[in-house]
Amino acid sequence: MNPQPPVCLWPDPRALGPITDLYELTMIVGYFAAGMADRRGSFELFVRKMPPNRAYLVFAGLEPAVGDVLRLAFSPEQIAAIRRWPLFERTDPAHLDALAALRFEGDIWSVPEGTVVFPGETLLRVTAPLPQAQWLETYLVAALAYPTLVASKAARMVTVAGGRPLYEFGLRRGHGPHAGLLAARASYLAGFDGTSNVEAARLLGIPASGTMAHSWVQSFPSEFQAFATFAQVFPETATLLVDTYDTLEGVRHAAAIRPQVQAIRIDSGDLDDLSRRARAILDQCGRTDVKIMVSGDLDELRIAQLVGAGAPVDGFGVGTELVTSRDAPALGMVYKLVELDGQGRFKLSPGKRTYPMAKQVFRRRDAAGRFAGDHVTRADETAEGEPLLVPVVRNGQLVAPLPSLDRVRAHCRQQLASLPDRLLGLDAPPAYPISYSVALEADARRLMTR
Amino acid sequence: MNPQPPVCLWPDPRALGPITDLYELTMIVGYFAAGMADRRGSFELFVRKMPPNRAYLVFAGLEPAVGDVLRLAFSPEQIAAIRRWPLFERTDPAHLDALAALRFEGDIWSVPEGTVVFPGETLLRVTAPLPQAQWLETYLVAALAYPTLVASKAARMVTVAGGRPLYEFGLRRGHGPHAGLLAARASYLAGFDGTSNVEAARLLGIPASGTMAHSWVQSFPSEFQAFATFAQVFPETATLLVDTYDTLEGVRHAAAIRPQVQAIRIDSGDLDDLSRRARAILDQCGRTDVKIMVSGDLDELRIAQLVGAGAPVDGFGVGTELVTSRDAPALGMVYKLVELDGQGRFKLSPGKRTYPMAKQVFRRRDAAGRFAGDHVTRADETAEGEPLLVPVVRNGQLVAPLPSLDRVRAHCRQQLASLPDRLLGLDAPPAYPISYSVALEADARRLMTR
Repeated sequence: MNPQPPVCLWPDPRALGPITDLYELTMIVGYFAAGMADRRGSFELFVRKMPPNRAYLVFAGLEPAVGDVLRLAFSPEQIAAIRRWPLFERTDPAHLDALAALRFEGDIWSVPEGTVVFPGETLLRVTAPLPQAQWLETYLVAALAYPTLVASKAARMVTVAGGRPLYEFGLRRGHGPHAGLLAARASYLAGFDGTSNVEAARLLGIPASGTMAHSWVQSFPSEFQAFATFAQVFPETATLLVDTYDTLEGVRHAAAIRPQVQAIRIDSGDLDDLSRRARAILDQCGRTDVKIMVSGDLDELRIAQLVGAGAPVDGFGVGTELVTSRDAPALGMVYKLVELDGQGRFKLSPGKRTYPMAKQVFRRRDAAGRFAGDHVTRADETAEGEPLLVPVVRNGQLVAPLPSLDRVRAHCRQQLASLPDRLLGLDAPPAYPISYSVALEADARRLMTR
Repeated sequence: MNPQPPVCLWPDPRALGPITDLYELTMIVGYFAAGMADRRGSFELFVRKMPPNRAYLVFAGLEPAVGDVLRLAFSPEQIAAIRRWPLFERTDPAHLDALAALRFEGDIWSVPEGTVVFPGETLLRVTAPLPQAQWLETYLVAALAYPTLVASKAARMVTVAGGRPLYEFGLRRGHGPHAGLLAARASYLAGFDGTSNVEAARLLGIPASGTMAHSWVQSFPSEFQAFATFAQVFPETATLLVDTYDTLEGVRHAAAIRPQVQAIRIDSGDLDDLSRRARAILDQCGRTDVKIMVSGDLDELRIAQLVGAGAPVDGFGVGTELVTSRDAPALGMVYKLVELDGQGRFKLSPGKRTYPMAKQVFRRRDAAGRFAGDHVTRADETAEGEPLLVPVVRNGQLVAPLPSLDRVRAHCRQQLASLPDRLLGLDAPPAYPISYSVALEADARRLMTR
């Protein structure tokens, strides 16, 4: 008997078209059926409100999202399966034919990746024939919200780590293995120094960081033997995990290894106290160059405490709190129709009002070069400051190559350095000033009256 | 100029080998280098402690995880890239050669998917040569923890929805687009009735559920015209979103559509009040068969309130709270070495003690057939009750085809029906009795003394 193979939930990157909500599909079919497929819509992506504990967001995920959007398509096999669904039973089958040729051939403007952004600001705008523009809604939000959450969380850690390196160790704690790849990229662009994720490191050129598990130590008759063997395979580059049995005893074993190892790692217990004792032991043994890494449920508060207390920690490994953005695991990112054939559109649902018309965001700086406030205008207005949205895709083609990940990271570093100090605190974050142009308010009033 | 294409972060399912933490790789290389690659290890996967607000967990994600594990491999391109990393600079290059031929050829025992489980119980056991067994650690935890979180959250919703259908609408709120596929599957197996995720529905045979977005309504001169056009394309199967402008006005427009539509959907405002007013309007218009769907930041507490208040709701669309498991976005799932060549292994790290030896879990039922308590034993013991772990993979091959998703869903339904009532409350969950065998306690004591 040849058993049926287990389901594979990894999609084909050339057929990501149906990774979307069914309602996008019903609307696409509806626009074709209603003869509205050539009408040109503009949709804008923005965040409705700031998640808890955040004073700013770092916009992330753009490059892989744009890559996926430019490849977006349905395979014949996918269309054949969808045709048979009950929802389409009484629908003219010809209405589904258009899916086969559907590609994204419109325009995208976006805030550059790594930019600090705020709720209520347009982050990305899609202008395209209605079916194409509608199609992108679910995918873009799914592809951008999570990296933005992770980059925003990572930035909080970077700003309190006082220059000490931070490593993303969260693959196993992410929401599935793909989230791990997205998190490694998002945390690196926000200023992390490496990842434990081998494939993320390879695909993205991020430094890979790793040590050993407790199981390595447990596989040898003694901890010392486990350390000595590891150090022999990885001379001078080994980091030894010292807390399998007794942490300080582990530090003594690590200190005795020749030639000296690169670092030790403490993954449990009172990290402040243990790092001091470990440092003392290492120094007494002449191992002043051996670094101390710590990990274990670290978040930005814990990192700030260790740094503030002067614990002799040389690097932090961060997992769960970062990759799940645990204190704020969801972002209210939305994608809304704002223009149809040049006419403003908006909605009035309770608590969910939007501004009509394609928009631009201008950012002013104070005399010291720090961000002083953002002004949202119609796309055809100008205002003081730097316009944040730039063209990325025109007629379904990249306008220019997207910046490399290292350039995005450098941009993000400059952005964080330009934040006013009051936004850098970890709690009770104050609001950043955002205003809307007179023309936008007038458009909204005019539509509301109708 | 031919711009460099944006990075694609979708992995090749035939080369998932390096979707793992670097330390697994250093240990694999180390076991080969140290001549320990033939030693046989058993690792066990379990959850350390119950997440907040949960009284039980639903084990999920097994089928796709096993599929991935049976295909696990490194491509030549991946190995070539890894060789050049600084960590391996001083490592004998021959030690990396073994990666090319590495496949999983060991054994896996597991609790069946859809089973109700508890912290401290072995959920899955891998027995294989050390490098292979170690390799699986990160991937298995990444592939199983998130579906288990979602299925556990979904089960809470199913148990309070009183038989009303629940639909997973969370693709855009998941942690990346792949999380959406995993969440659709996990919530369906826990008793949800459908998903909005088109590709999940196609790949898994789950009913697809969808309506329209506000943008559809906004694209027409009037709401009525938007509804009428949609109902013409999807006669008798349309669900109309009524809250774009004024919800009750929207309900009146929906009630006037001929032939009558299948349902309306309310996505904002006071859902209890609005659903009652909507029902009254529909009934007055003779639309007694038109169903009322509600959505908008629903969680199990809100669903329980609406059901308890007798709101005339015929179905719930659930997104953010479900797919991010928002109140408990992380699960402390771990994978620990318990045996090496038949000898028990464990660790003593503060707060992270484990029991040595391969284990089995026996579940007892009370006279009414409800779960009465679980007993964890050594794998070579027997005890009263049903053994939960069954063989799934032997020598790298499936022992038998895995059960279909519908069979897993039926199993889960029976499991939930067997839970004692006291575990079904939504808050202040009591602990379920778990005990460990005398032999296990003796093994642990013996190793601790050494």
